[in-house]
Amino acid sequence: MSQQRHVVLLVGGVGGAKLALGLSHSLQADELTIIVNTADDFEHLGLHISPDLDTVMYTLAEIANPQTGWGVINDSYRALDMLRRYDETRAWFRLGDLDLGTNLMRTAMLGKGLSLTDVTRHLSRSLGIAHNILPMSNDPVRTIIETPDGDLPFQVYFVRERWQPIVTGIRFDGAAQASASAAALSALASASLIVFGPSNPFLSIDPILAIPAMRSAIAERKVPCMAVSPIVGGRALKGPAAKLMQERGIDVSPLGVAAHYDQLIDGMIIDRTDAHLSAKIEAMGLRTAALPTVMRSISDKIKLAEQILDWVEP
Amino acid sequence: MSQQRHVVLLVGGVGGAKLALGLSHSLQADELTIIVNTADDFEHLGLHISPDLDTVMYTLAEIANPQTGWGVINDSYRALDMLRRYDETRAWFRLGDLDLGTNLMRTAMLGKGLSLTDVTRHLSRSLGIAHNILPMSNDPVRTIIETPDGDLPFQVYFVRERWQPIVTGIRFDGAAQASASAAALSALASASLIVFGPSNPFLSIDPILAIPAMRSAIAERKVPCMAVSPIVGGRALKGPAAKLMQERGIDVSPLGVAAHYDQLIDGMIIDRTDAHLSAKIEAMGLRTAALPTVMRSISDKIKLAEQILDWVEP
Repeated sequence: MSQQRHVVLLVGGVGGAKLALGLSHSLQADELTIIVNTADDFEHLGLHISPDLDTVMYTLAEIANPQTGWGVINDSYRALDMLRRYDETRAWFRLGDLDLGTNLMRTAMLGKGLSLTDVTRHLSRSLGIAHNILPMSNDPVRTIIETPDGDLPFQVYFVRERWQPIVTGIRFDGAAQASASAAALSALASASLIVFGPSNPFLSIDPILAIPAMRSAIAERKVPCMAVSPIVGGRALKGPAAKLMQERGIDVSPLGVAAHYDQLIDGMIIDRTDAHLSAKIEAMGLRTAALPTVMRSISDKIKLAEQILDWVEP
Repeated sequence: MSQQRHVVLLVGGVGGAKLALGLSHSLQADELTIIVNTADDFEHLGLHISPDLDTVMYTLAEIANPQTGWGVINDSYRALDMLRRYDETRAWFRLGDLDLGTNLMRTAMLGKGLSLTDVTRHLSRSLGIAHNILPMSNDPVRTIIETPDGDLPFQVYFVRERWQPIVTGIRFDGAAQASASAAALSALASASLIVFGPSNPFLSIDPILAIPAMRSAIAERKVPCMAVSPIVGGRALKGPAAKLMQERGIDVSPLGVAAHYDQLIDGMIIDRTDAHLSAKIEAMGLRTAALPTVMRSISDKIKLAEQILDWVEP
């Protein structure tokens, strides 16, 4: 193939960011584009907060907090402590002081009329990141969690309520009207491989796919699209993916993930723990590879990235 | 006199805040109201910053930085350090992390439609301050410094340019249209004594007096109005007052200050260093007292406050 190698990775936060970091070690700046969910974005304290963009950015800049996966390493919470003196109820979203610097800068740049794509490029270049990190859209898309007690904005459900409410539905307000970012569409148009990161299918990948132009670009691709299962051994590595699958009556396994992505993917990377499910996934018409997908160290991340690339592009 | 004692103090930042603290030790919560200049307020990084209000508030809460007089003691600058990685040019205004907590809260409350008066009351009560701190107005008034090289917004002149540009004029944009805050007017209406703090006459007191309703309320008062000279021994205790007086050809002495306040005051508190000027000030038709006005320790502040009250209300 004479086509230039160009991997486009779709991700949400922590899990996807780990794979992004691994891939960034194997691929040159022009060989990898990371498209990030922005339906978790929200306005809080007058700031435009983009949790997934920042998680990916801090991870690639190698300044992410290794304990949490999000936020900046060795951050402090002094601004938040002061804020708490004025109003306890506004301090539920843990914004560190360093993280505040990022959010102040983003908000100020957006206020000057720059797009989220331009702002993200500036922030990530400033942190020394060569690879392109792109928001899925410059338009506002907001995940709303439907519960028996009413609708919850995503961060209220996820952070304040620690994803404990029962979820009866998820919708992405604004997605149907949102344009994909031109940069994201252009990346998909030149992709040699599309990868859905090991992110929450319902909360991180679905919002990206809910933008009509993104879904079409992926559905009409001429290159392979592979998903990395975020479910390992019947559990989510992090966050509410397994709980959401149970609540929806979906099999909590890579099979459930594969069925969810349905016609959009050509193959699935599952954890070695789940190797016994390979035949069933292949019976769905998908290629499959059983690899060590649990990424703890940096070398785990690089190794998984290399193994995925070797498997898809032998 | 059966009238209830009620001292209304007009101030800007550090110098005035010191006298406010002294008075707050001598006077009950309903005996002292502090009206603060807000023409130094500005929008920066999307935040509504009120430097003088915060200086007064932190001083009365006894959490002000004793080295600078402004900002919070033991503050850190981590958010600003992060911001500097993104844009060196936006980090010139030194906002500490704790101070950011205050400014985030103020901005969020203003964003909800609360007035600056209501916000200031909430913030100061939260910090345990019993006395009323009032912005001069809820409307935007902005000090503009005219220089040979053009107009500078106040904080650009004061902080970024360290008040070095030559000042050819000072104007208070919005003042003529601004309403005095109802709370400030009500305080003046019930005052038994009005005091102009040892603040910069041109940059801190003048903007308050530039609001028509404030000037009228003071001009038409039936109670004494006394000014504390910020000029001691031919020099300003802090900031550009002396430099501004020189540039305007005004005598850099309490005489120049007295002439500037002209018909608005009945008397002047000068430093003991300047006691030899008492006769000249009295020749202007003003009462005068020479007191130790340089406030370093908390006991200096309390003593000056007590001496002023004893002098005016023997």
